[in-house]
Amino acid sequence: MKNITIGLILCVALFLAVGCSNQQSANTEQTKMEKAENKTENTIFPKGEKAPAETFTGTVYVQPLAPKTENNNFSIASVTFEPGARANWHNHPAGQTILVTMGKGLYQEKGKPIKTINKGDVILCNPDIEHWHGASPESRMTHVVITNYKGDSQVNWLKPVTDEEYKADAK
Amino acid sequence: MKNITIGLILCVALFLAVGCSNQQSANTEQTKMEKAENKTENTIFPKGEKAPAETFTGTVYVQPLAPKTENNNFSIASVTFEPGARANWHNHPAGQTILVTMGKGLYQEKGKPIKTINKGDVILCNPDIEHWHGASPESRMTHVVITNYKGDSQVNWLKPVTDEEYKADAK
Repeated sequence: MKNITIGLILCVALFLAVGCSNQQSANTEQTKMEKAENKTENTIFPKGEKAPAETFTGTVYVQPLAPKTENNNFSIASVTFEPGARANWHNHPAGQTILVTMGKGLYQEKGKPIKTINKGDVILCNPDIEHWHGASPESRMTHVVITNYKGDSQVNWLKPVTDEEYKADAK
Repeated sequence: MKNITIGLILCVALFLAVGCSNQQSANTEQTKMEKAENKTENTIFPKGEKAPAETFTGTVYVQPLAPKTENNNFSIASVTFEPGARANWHNHPAGQTILVTMGKGLYQEKGKPIKTINKGDVILCNPDIEHWHGASPESRMTHVVITNYKGDSQVNWLKPVTDEEYKADAK
């Protein structure tokens, strides 16, 4: 009987030891997964500097990628919006092309419904169209913007997007 | 003695069962990791159609993203090179901007050393500069290219990059 008890104790100890190592291994795997997922979510370019509160609501980062040059009549930047963040209403005198590189966001032209935009979407924003873009309420969003110049002008900033405007149903 | 033997058999069975479940769990985690890593490696945009053999060596895919318009004097495309694949030597009459979105590649301007380019790099290619770009020998590479127009012309294709040229040391 004593021997059986010792056997059972050893058995339980072994079970606990294996279970513990199993858990540790699962935790390591989980950390790896999280890292991989963060990497997946990673923007391609650095997040950049915080954008000014006068022209954005919430937390937005801007990373300039390429300036206007003799050959390029545009500049390029990567812009990252934290969930709920968005640009003010604005327009571009010579238009802008938007390439969504990460996450899920919102885009609205004045008088039209809000559109959901996703990683991989390309949006051509025509000159002088009043509009705004930003993250969706629950997801970060990064886009690369190629913004044309009309002379020295790229953007006219207008009013902030109110919470009521932002929370209108997205199509 | 019989009881101890039964205890030990039970113990071994339990050990094997836990070990097996552990392995299964590790395998599942591995599959998840692979999926996550594939997702990480995923291009943002669809891979597109195979590029013509006359102007590329190896397997290359091109996905048009935005055409020239009244406002944009450029087109945008996502180009994916399988390992070892590269464009022919060529030049752009009005220049090109390259945004590396995935992997590791090579870029060379005529008479200069080969440069290694990585995810997140931005390359401004000036007008009329003879050059080539492609994947590194061991890694896929995707870049978004913004190619300016000079009238109707965007690119002049030249000779293929030979294996000797491609295999010269990258800096």
